[in-house]
Amino acid sequence: MTQRIAVLAGDGIGKEVMPEGLRALAAAARRFDLDLTFEAFDFASCDYYLEHGQMLPDDWHSTLVGFDALYYGAIGWPETVPDHVSLWGSLLKFRREFDQYVNLRPCRLLPGIQSPLAGRKPGDIDFYVVRENTEGEYSSVGGTMFEGTEREVVIQETVMTRTGVDRVLKYAFDLAQTRPRKKLTSATKSNGIAITMPWWDTRVAAMGERYPEVEVDQFHIDILTANFVLHPDWFDVVVASNLFGDILSDLGPACTGTIGVAPSANINPEGTFPSLFEPVHGSAPDIAGRGIANPIGQIWSGAMMLEHLGHPEAGAAILAAIEAVLAAGDAGTLTPDLKGHGTTEGLGRAIAERI
Amino acid sequence: MTQRIAVLAGDGIGKEVMPEGLRALAAAARRFDLDLTFEAFDFASCDYYLEHGQMLPDDWHSTLVGFDALYYGAIGWPETVPDHVSLWGSLLKFRREFDQYVNLRPCRLLPGIQSPLAGRKPGDIDFYVVRENTEGEYSSVGGTMFEGTEREVVIQETVMTRTGVDRVLKYAFDLAQTRPRKKLTSATKSNGIAITMPWWDTRVAAMGERYPEVEVDQFHIDILTANFVLHPDWFDVVVASNLFGDILSDLGPACTGTIGVAPSANINPEGTFPSLFEPVHGSAPDIAGRGIANPIGQIWSGAMMLEHLGHPEAGAAILAAIEAVLAAGDAGTLTPDLKGHGTTEGLGRAIAERI
Ligand SMILES: CC(C)[C@H](C(=O)O)[C@@H](O)C(=O)O
Ligand SMILES: CC(C)[C@H](C(=O)O)[C@@H](O)C(=O)O
Repeated sequence: MTQRIAVLAGDGIGKEVMPEGLRALAAAARRFDLDLTFEAFDFASCDYYLEHGQMLPDDWHSTLVGFDALYYGAIGWPETVPDHVSLWGSLLKFRREFDQYVNLRPCRLLPGIQSPLAGRKPGDIDFYVVRENTEGEYSSVGGTMFEGTEREVVIQETVMTRTGVDRVLKYAFDLAQTRPRKKLTSATKSNGIAITMPWWDTRVAAMGERYPEVEVDQFHIDILTANFVLHPDWFDVVVASNLFGDILSDLGPACTGTIGVAPSANINPEGTFPSLFEPVHGSAPDIAGRGIANPIGQIWSGAMMLEHLGHPEAGAAILAAIEAVLAAGDAGTLTPDLKGHGTTEGLGRAIAERI
Repeated sequence: MTQRIAVLAGDGIGKEVMPEGLRALAAAARRFDLDLTFEAFDFASCDYYLEHGQMLPDDWHSTLVGFDALYYGAIGWPETVPDHVSLWGSLLKFRREFDQYVNLRPCRLLPGIQSPLAGRKPGDIDFYVVRENTEGEYSSVGGTMFEGTEREVVIQETVMTRTGVDRVLKYAFDLAQTRPRKKLTSATKSNGIAITMPWWDTRVAAMGERYPEVEVDQFHIDILTANFVLHPDWFDVVVASNLFGDILSDLGPACTGTIGVAPSANINPEGTFPSLFEPVHGSAPDIAGRGIANPIGQIWSGAMMLEHLGHPEAGAAILAAIEAVLAAGDAGTLTPDLKGHGTTEGLGRAIAERI
């Protein structure tokens, strides 16, 4: 049965790393005899916005909804389009309208990558951040009063629903249940954010009762970020609201030295809508156009996509190829962020050859 | 002229580190001939709450408002009083009702303290977090609808005002102006938190126009936390909203290995109300009662208090004594968190002797 994948490269280095992601997927498809087709679109990019005055065509929903997955590059070009316009008009819209309510992001210390933390080695850090991806602090409700005057007041509402919180907690507990350590950490701030977060804590406690085997703890987000640096080995599955998850899933990869390498999956677990797979990194205007961006985040996201599409062995083969190339540590192959002098394409080819 | 200081030890290790803070202040007062008086209160603690059903007596405002400064330990005992009750009933109330709108927190790599970051040495990391301290995400506006049902919705409003934001920005720009590097970094999230944060960015830009000598940059909070780990040397003065500042001022000290050592000042710059000085660490129920808590955060907060009260040389002498004792590195003096086997009192005495 053919699986159809929509390809949206986006902006900046998104356009450079996407071909390498596709190269790895093609290699995996050959080796595991997968029937995948790819269709590329130019929308969901700032170039498209400059031409059409909107990030997406009017019929984007019907165009994309039939795909089995969306494979996304990076989005944003703040020099010409403000970030909140480009992001709310594309990525955040997909997450919300395709109800991709889980954002899953692995944080893993890989061989050959230097962690900024002293004395940590591969195997020491290996956890997932499960981020709520459709509601919470990322709301579009609020506004400004007395605009432009000394009395100006700006209000934005954080909106959490029981449905929205419980389903992502359930996903996180289910994931913790499958892991050897069976440990779940909740990110909270119930001492300061005194309406939504104490309630979040009660939902975590309620869900925890249904998973007696899972060990649950919680930290306030301030000390939790500190513990990512001080004790990254404490964590197994970390579940967090939209904003806290956003922060933790950049900080976690930073602690493993993989900020340019980390993947993410925006998942609609029921499969009612296509899920979306994208690197954690952005469009990186500072290095765009030079062919030196690290394609591993894009390639690893492709591995998560194959796993989601029911091909775990193919996903594992891609990840193994990434690890092998990193462990080999050839400076002519690795990109500058990994202290090499290779190119996006060179690193992409090296990984594809190993698959 | 006598300066009157109200002493509120609070809970847990607050009660253990406070005597050492007072010991250091007494030593500095002797050496610099300062006229300080201290008056201790038992309220603003969970013990007080258990006895009186409230964190503060009804007349707390008139009792405290005449003091020149408040010297605070640590607050919270979640086993008996939920954190949001104890904190909103004391510390957060002081911040708001005494209009302590600046929370100032130094992040500095000190001699003799091991940073969890690889290859960093004293001098490499030296910046301030300036946190908005009265409004923003820490709001008490919001509520729950359809409570206890499947349709439950919980809303909390972030409220920012032009007055509130501009005054803390002004403080941060003024501070940056006095520093050799004259650099200010704004913590934002205008790509995701699309109502308040784009507006925050415009206020930063507007204030920046009044400080042409100050170099301004900004990062979204997710990548900013990553950069605290990857490039802590980039920062000089970091200005942030209440929540973002809370996160950054725990993460920054974590990166310098000083989470148990970091001080903070809750400042009402106009002096209309007393300012409040407290360590960043909490009441630490896990080690409370054992006499092994590190008193340096409390002592360093006392140094910030003396500076605020117009005695910068006395504040500097305390900080120099802390640095000297840390640099000496005597394991019998240092507390367990610093890999020693000393006691709270022993470390406090060693510092007081050096003043
Ligand atoms: C205890 C808590 C409410 C407080 C805060 O979030 O402000 C603390 O973390 C701090 O940073 O002073
Ligand atoms: C670009 C931005 C809106 C986005 C987010 O905050 O969700 C990004 O940081 C991410 O983590 O995917």
